[in-house]
Amino acid sequence: MSAPSSEAQPRIDDLPALDVEARSARVRAFLETQGLDALAVTTLTNVRWLTGFTGSNGAALITDAELVLITDGRYADQAPTELEAAGVGADVLVMTDPVGGILEAAATCTRLGLEADNISWADQRRLAEQAGALELVPTTDALVALRATKDSGELARIRAAAAITDATLASVRPMLAESPTERDIAFALDQGLRLRGATSPAYETIVASGPNGALPHGRPSERRVQEADLIVIDVGAVVDGYRSDMTRTFVVGEPTAAQQRQLDVVLEAQRAGVATVKAGVDAKTVDAACRDVITDAGWADAFTHGTGHGVGLDIHERPRVNSRTSDVLEAGMVVTVEPGVYLPGIGGVRWEDLLSVTDAGAEVLTTSAKQPVVENTAP
Amino acid sequence: MSAPSSEAQPRIDDLPALDVEARSARVRAFLETQGLDALAVTTLTNVRWLTGFTGSNGAALITDAELVLITDGRYADQAPTELEAAGVGADVLVMTDPVGGILEAAATCTRLGLEADNISWADQRRLAEQAGALELVPTTDALVALRATKDSGELARIRAAAAITDATLASVRPMLAESPTERDIAFALDQGLRLRGATSPAYETIVASGPNGALPHGRPSERRVQEADLIVIDVGAVVDGYRSDMTRTFVVGEPTAAQQRQLDVVLEAQRAGVATVKAGVDAKTVDAACRDVITDAGWADAFTHGTGHGVGLDIHERPRVNSRTSDVLEAGMVVTVEPGVYLPGIGGVRWEDLLSVTDAGAEVLTTSAKQPVVENTAP
Repeated sequence: MSAPSSEAQPRIDDLPALDVEARSARVRAFLETQGLDALAVTTLTNVRWLTGFTGSNGAALITDAELVLITDGRYADQAPTELEAAGVGADVLVMTDPVGGILEAAATCTRLGLEADNISWADQRRLAEQAGALELVPTTDALVALRATKDSGELARIRAAAAITDATLASVRPMLAESPTERDIAFALDQGLRLRGATSPAYETIVASGPNGALPHGRPSERRVQEADLIVIDVGAVVDGYRSDMTRTFVVGEPTAAQQRQLDVVLEAQRAGVATVKAGVDAKTVDAACRDVITDAGWADAFTHGTGHGVGLDIHERPRVNSRTSDVLEAGMVVTVEPGVYLPGIGGVRWEDLLSVTDAGAEVLTTSAKQPVVENTAP
Repeated sequence: MSAPSSEAQPRIDDLPALDVEARSARVRAFLETQGLDALAVTTLTNVRWLTGFTGSNGAALITDAELVLITDGRYADQAPTELEAAGVGADVLVMTDPVGGILEAAATCTRLGLEADNISWADQRRLAEQAGALELVPTTDALVALRATKDSGELARIRAAAAITDATLASVRPMLAESPTERDIAFALDQGLRLRGATSPAYETIVASGPNGALPHGRPSERRVQEADLIVIDVGAVVDGYRSDMTRTFVVGEPTAAQQRQLDVVLEAQRAGVATVKAGVDAKTVDAACRDVITDAGWADAFTHGTGHGVGLDIHERPRVNSRTSDVLEAGMVVTVEPGVYLPGIGGVRWEDLLSVTDAGAEVLTTSAKQPVVENTAP
């Protein structure tokens, strides 16, 4: 039940601390620009980001002077402990109904922002019924935008998650030659991530072989990997709440000329995208760099999704990296670059790396080799 | 990578089919009682229940005559396939924005119900802006109430999930004597569930030993299980979307007299609760039966949660089984009975079974023995 002793497991205590306390100031600056005197935070990952609280139920209220965490009795002990560990000076209100807690904590406020995308219509109606003179103001993506740039503690966790994934994929790679099912491979990956210290996979691990690979998000099936299959493996880990994301494509035995071209074109597209990543660059430029290569190869319609996305406490967060985004890359952002070409009835190729954006360019956090050929050792 | 060959794995094809098609008629009867001519279903498990669609993004609109599934391009192939497999005659609208799809599908309606607890304020505002003469009506728990009674296909899946969990716990039990960490135990359980054919654990597996057991929802830690620890293990599996839920308490070596009393009182409470379960019974009666035994033993304040809850596509669903509920048990409901006594600094005891409610009483779906003593084989 223990991890291979030769591989370092991340110990959270050894990672640089998260600077949770500094985040309140960033939110307060946002409040001031919006003319709000409080924000009710009802998105759980935003609550975690702002307070350090990791429970499964909680809301926060932040004003110019105060930060209050509202959670239920299950977390009466855990919540103050976690807030203290995070260096956050916040009050904890223990109550089953966050609506009551929000109103109590916002008693002296006049304009209260709500996270409109993550508070239910029912809760908004209940707040409105009891709000009296308190004005409820919809806000969109406020904390999500602030979360896009990571501090050094966050980067260290994402880097650790990427390193665990690299080591795990390397250990599972040889089994591809042994005719496993997609599900066998996914199982081995998930097991390997945990053995190396991940809390869990960062999302449902994708293993899509042969024609199944034509679906970008295929679920691992009982299909057995066969010689000459393209095999798309999309896998990441969670370390202390932070996620990694990576895709590699494999083929058992020698690829056909058509497969080799598909592998090469997507690799060229991916490299072109990675080369554009730098603080100050429009995120849509990254998408265009990938898409141009694939379009030139005649596969414009076979690249059916955006080029990437931010990664952090959520597996999909800001910035967006696609053809329609107005997001601009900033130092400290963490983004994927993951073009793919999906051919119905044939299969898929995707290459995905996770990058930390810097002023000089980018640090590639996922370092697994892009060597698709797995020697066929089957008898 | 394959399961023990002597243990049967559930094959979904061998389980009785889900009667998905019949569910639309139940929703339409609800619409009629509410004077609604359509309901927008924005809770993902409700969408799955109503249509058979298992993707990670989707909404449905149901009217007296039509059922429409709205999902994004990733599921353009999967969605029609799943609906057909479920025997559901529904149109599929592929669009990124469900709000547009809902309005398009509800074009001829006048009173549209929304799932107020599961549609965001932002989406409700966008619907309202474009709704014209269409009236938006908040509804609460409509489909959740309908989902509480299960058909035979649903019961078969929950039963299969419970059987996998029973077999897994039996296989992991011996390791408790080997001084594993809580995390080792949870890992072995999660691995065992998957090897026996579960899609995943039904929730984050709980292993809480010694003083950690005083928290009802403790997360597995690096603490090593020691002789004379009480060990609470709360574990379940997912089979084809449906979940199971069970808790057993163990002690390595001979329990102290105080531990034995804690184990016995909670067991007596659990049996008293189970004995009351029957169609037509108020769910709060089940809670009272458990609570009375624990109160009589002087531990009223140490039983810090409700007695149980419904289980199905969600791990917590209707009916509620606590002291305040007005829910009434019906045949076909699936509920937990899980009293516990949590003593700060000492540890916890919880016994939990999953029951299928019948007209005659209940079928207990979780059959693991309640034999807490694990012989200490450590050198």
